[in-house]
Amino acid sequence: MSLDPTRLAPMANAIRALSMDAVQAAKSGHPGMPMGMADVAAVLWSKYLKFDPTAPDWADRDRFVLSAGHGSMLLYSLLHLSGYDRPTMDDIANFRQLGSPCAGHPENFLLDGVESTTGPLGQGLAMAVGMAIAERHLNAEFGDDLVDHRTWVVAGDGCLMEGINHEAIGIAGHLKLGRMIVLWDDNAITIDGSTDLSTSEDIRARYDATGWHTVTCDGHDPEDIQRAIDEALADERPSLVACRTVIGKGAPNKEGSSAVHGAPLGPEEVAAAREELGWNAPAFEVPEDVLSDWRATGERGRAVHAEWGTRLEASERKAEFVRRMAGDLPAGDKAQQAFAEWLGQDHTVATRKASEMALEVLVPLLPEMVGGSADLTGSNNTKTKAMQALTADDYSGRYLYYGIREFGMAAAMNGMALHGGVIPYGGTFLIFSDYCRNAVRLSALQQVRAIYVFTHDSIGLGEDGPTHQPVEQVMSLRLIPNLNVFRPADVIETAECWQLALAQKGTPSVLALSRQNLPQLRHDGDMLSAKGAYRLRAASGERKVVLIATGSEVEVACATAEALEADGIGTDVVSMPCMELFAEQDESYRNDLLPADALKVSIEAGSTLGWERYTGTDGLQIGLDRFGASAPAGDLFAKFGFTAEAIVPQIKARLGR
Amino acid sequence: MSLDPTRLAPMANAIRALSMDAVQAAKSGHPGMPMGMADVAAVLWSKYLKFDPTAPDWADRDRFVLSAGHGSMLLYSLLHLSGYDRPTMDDIANFRQLGSPCAGHPENFLLDGVESTTGPLGQGLAMAVGMAIAERHLNAEFGDDLVDHRTWVVAGDGCLMEGINHEAIGIAGHLKLGRMIVLWDDNAITIDGSTDLSTSEDIRARYDATGWHTVTCDGHDPEDIQRAIDEALADERPSLVACRTVIGKGAPNKEGSSAVHGAPLGPEEVAAAREELGWNAPAFEVPEDVLSDWRATGERGRAVHAEWGTRLEASERKAEFVRRMAGDLPAGDKAQQAFAEWLGQDHTVATRKASEMALEVLVPLLPEMVGGSADLTGSNNTKTKAMQALTADDYSGRYLYYGIREFGMAAAMNGMALHGGVIPYGGTFLIFSDYCRNAVRLSALQQVRAIYVFTHDSIGLGEDGPTHQPVEQVMSLRLIPNLNVFRPADVIETAECWQLALAQKGTPSVLALSRQNLPQLRHDGDMLSAKGAYRLRAASGERKVVLIATGSEVEVACATAEALEADGIGTDVVSMPCMELFAEQDESYRNDLLPADALKVSIEAGSTLGWERYTGTDGLQIGLDRFGASAPAGDLFAKFGFTAEAIVPQIKARLGR
Repeated sequence: MSLDPTRLAPMANAIRALSMDAVQAAKSGHPGMPMGMADVAAVLWSKYLKFDPTAPDWADRDRFVLSAGHGSMLLYSLLHLSGYDRPTMDDIANFRQLGSPCAGHPENFLLDGVESTTGPLGQGLAMAVGMAIAERHLNAEFGDDLVDHRTWVVAGDGCLMEGINHEAIGIAGHLKLGRMIVLWDDNAITIDGSTDLSTSEDIRARYDATGWHTVTCDGHDPEDIQRAIDEALADERPSLVACRTVIGKGAPNKEGSSAVHGAPLGPEEVAAAREELGWNAPAFEVPEDVLSDWRATGERGRAVHAEWGTRLEASERKAEFVRRMAGDLPAGDKAQQAFAEWLGQDHTVATRKASEMALEVLVPLLPEMVGGSADLTGSNNTKTKAMQALTADDYSGRYLYYGIREFGMAAAMNGMALHGGVIPYGGTFLIFSDYCRNAVRLSALQQVRAIYVFTHDSIGLGEDGPTHQPVEQVMSLRLIPNLNVFRPADVIETAECWQLALAQKGTPSVLALSRQNLPQLRHDGDMLSAKGAYRLRAASGERKVVLIATGSEVEVACATAEALEADGIGTDVVSMPCMELFAEQDESYRNDLLPADALKVSIEAGSTLGWERYTGTDGLQIGLDRFGASAPAGDLFAKFGFTAEAIVPQIKARLGR
Repeated sequence: MSLDPTRLAPMANAIRALSMDAVQAAKSGHPGMPMGMADVAAVLWSKYLKFDPTAPDWADRDRFVLSAGHGSMLLYSLLHLSGYDRPTMDDIANFRQLGSPCAGHPENFLLDGVESTTGPLGQGLAMAVGMAIAERHLNAEFGDDLVDHRTWVVAGDGCLMEGINHEAIGIAGHLKLGRMIVLWDDNAITIDGSTDLSTSEDIRARYDATGWHTVTCDGHDPEDIQRAIDEALADERPSLVACRTVIGKGAPNKEGSSAVHGAPLGPEEVAAAREELGWNAPAFEVPEDVLSDWRATGERGRAVHAEWGTRLEASERKAEFVRRMAGDLPAGDKAQQAFAEWLGQDHTVATRKASEMALEVLVPLLPEMVGGSADLTGSNNTKTKAMQALTADDYSGRYLYYGIREFGMAAAMNGMALHGGVIPYGGTFLIFSDYCRNAVRLSALQQVRAIYVFTHDSIGLGEDGPTHQPVEQVMSLRLIPNLNVFRPADVIETAECWQLALAQKGTPSVLALSRQNLPQLRHDGDMLSAKGAYRLRAASGERKVVLIATGSEVEVACATAEALEADGIGTDVVSMPCMELFAEQDESYRNDLLPADALKVSIEAGSTLGWERYTGTDGLQIGLDRFGASAPAGDLFAKFGFTAEAIVPQIKARLGR
């Protein structure tokens, strides 16, 4: 459809009306942003966005990310008006109520057309960077015929103030992701009031300095918006379009103030806005002619989609493309064969090295794997020999040098996984999971297959000291719902955990890996890690003690068991590489492994709180509830009691021997 | 001392020699940065830095923060050479060994002169912003005579790439912290290789855009370094001095490459560097003339310190200044009296509101309290009516509008607390503790009194939905060593928890506070929260059940107890506002509260993992191990089973009734 400002105004007002009415009905929500950005959204939807509301999962659609997720009514309005099945008008009328897919913030798992869960500020924009990376990467592999779309972002002042913004635009600028366009809702208002309260930054100059193209427009003038977007499209760099807007535009007594950001307008102001906007329709009704113009915005994409479908049918790469976008792994399991051979060998390696060995097998077999590290490539062992860098000059590469940007990396990984066609993995030190923790949480909430390679997973990293030694990180990651935290004990478990992580389409994984060498403890058994925990070593006589350990402490548990057995105390060793998978096993398996009549002892070089679930309060929890220290790893394990010599007497005392 | 380049070169080489020798002896560490920045450090120490090695805690000393903490040998060298008691040469020779205060990364609690623990990149610079804020604030209160110093930072490329850098310099630029100078080790090398691998940013332009003064110098030319620093000192804005350096300068075959960043040079290269530098002294020896020049750098400050001491003695504000810098609270406890009156009243308020009420009492009594919020002032209830903003125009204000910068805020709070004279508190939503988690960890590791006001502490926040609803946050914060996590149940406990947080000089605190209203449950008792947990309500007959709850779920526990008692099941309610303080109580208190012969049930709207410590595995853990949903709070509490109706049957079933 052509850009007719006289028809765009009522279209934008439809967004304003739905937004203020839904927020009013819910008695909570954020009317300011949808009302402020309604004109920009109407232009984008009418003229630029490539989408087909009847096929929300069309692989070559443009991605639209509402980074300022509190303005969710903007997105719900757009989806409804342009003809998606959901949300229905009922859904919108039930905004923020139990059961409505119109949640307070957009949730990708509740509605088609919501490309990502947003609300934690800055992360939507950072995920969009990942989407734009995935687009260029798949374009390099599958060509313009199949992959040729843009990534659009609506971001607010908050998104631009958050630290992750710096990391995200640094990546995008460096990789010259010119098909990414950020529409900044430049309204100079935050929750606390004017942006003058807290910032003096020249944002355009900062983006310019970071390799972006920038342009400003009047966010309430359709022709000026169009001019700015056209300029952005013409530039090879990623673009920031500063849309000068009035927050809550249309609410005559409140617009332009922070009062309209996050609270209902109130019935009087809603009525006044109707008058101001010339909007006579009742709440949750849209006049037929306006709705018809909106529905037309979806028509354009339908034809483009059909043409694309024809090209896909004709493509030699169709099957592979469809497989990858569906997130299915290739048929046949050649990796398993390679790993099975390791059982007969003997590898004393750090699990980070074991992970690299696993990647050398997996990466060639799974072309969808795209790896990277936040500037710790050699330490995280994330790069296989054959991997080439993904760069601005060559998007076909499969390895990303993310720079010292843990949060930006994790969010980009989420974006890649959400885009589809790619399985992202990325590395940093486990301690710096703290830096990207909320992105890991969003992996879990969004149900995406992002795989975190977190190495240097305990005091075992040694000399770098307490700032770098995880203590509470493993247990605290276990607390995040829908996240599998793997802490493998040796080369065999590491390979198994990689396979388990790759097999989970809707669950992200953390691999917590050692810096230090660990002996190979397993020489038989097939995928024993799949049950989360298993008996690695059985008591020779009557079982008195069960040692439960993870990662590098399984070796310690084996030494402890040997010493106890030498004293005639029958001792099992249970390796528990994944607490979450163990919790899913049936009761008989769990009770067989951790029987009521044995003394149960957990050994993990981290927080003990939580281990009582498996040891009982009458068991022992050997762990570390203080910060570490700087010294060689062996000295630290001795100092903090992670040796058979230190553990055996505690167990004997508990047994009264 | 005057700047004599011919004498500065050996001084810088002393740093290089100590650094490469210590790393070589430890067989681990980072020689590249100390060798690269040795010339800059020698100029700074000789000509600019105000310090007195005999009085490391002199309140008006310049603060020097090594944000690139991996280059710790730079700092240890400087402290030793300039005449601090520690580190001794033995300490340095034992770099990174158990018991040496020369840890892998600098630890403020191990050595005087180490102003902050650094290593987690970006945070040193961000803490320095807090120090510079504290300096200007105290200057506004105590005048130039007592407070008039600078904050210097050495930062690397990593510090500048991290997202927190954006937040920190945004705060500093906005507040025009002109007495802060960042010496950027601009060596164009990161661990993975050249910075070209991951960034294309024009860093000076970005700093310019953020309100900073910037200047470049040759980091190996003392006169050019001096020119740049002099320019920085003359400018009113905070300054970034880009020091063009060669990483590992002096190691002839390895300098300028990432190989020299984080590994020993090796004996041959150490020998080659000795030759290159003309450094003939054996390892861990410094020629007398060089040492003498270094010791002279400490002399300058001694005289300045003495003059300052005279001014302090003459000051009317001496007692108050000394008290505040010592971190002692004012004598007398007037707050207690005000809070005692609340027992006789009845306040049904959200605990975030109760916190505001407590602040209205405390803030006037404690002039050292400096509050703020990351753009959620009205939601966190962190600002009292009388508080004025701390701004570039008026540093005497006691309230900071941090902007949407959670991580930057938390790090600045650490810096303020480390500076001394100020007790910082700051607010955001509890969910965004994820954004600043590593700074909270550094509060704990550094043993500072930073107080985090984390509101909207559960699904009880309602409509904003799962992105904003904490589930795992409370328990995961409890895992951080030396951090008190308070979750008060009502207005009385909130006041108590504030007092407990303020009383802990060496332990930071989190206050997890509700968005929703909660009834006042306590009408008697004095500071019962001090024991971490206490019996709020005793069973009327024989005790069968003990309910343990925190925060908003204590109300639910009381209703549950009432229903159970009505059925003749004797039930205690234990309120546990602080698990950490409870763990410190003696066994008899703990056993009395949580006796072995009762069914123990925890009720907390968050992760259950961990509660087995207090309920036993045969108890019940009522919690939430999934993400929340978007709906009004009441609907969510019902949906997720946090009602007496949902809990009573589970308890009866467990009791076999």
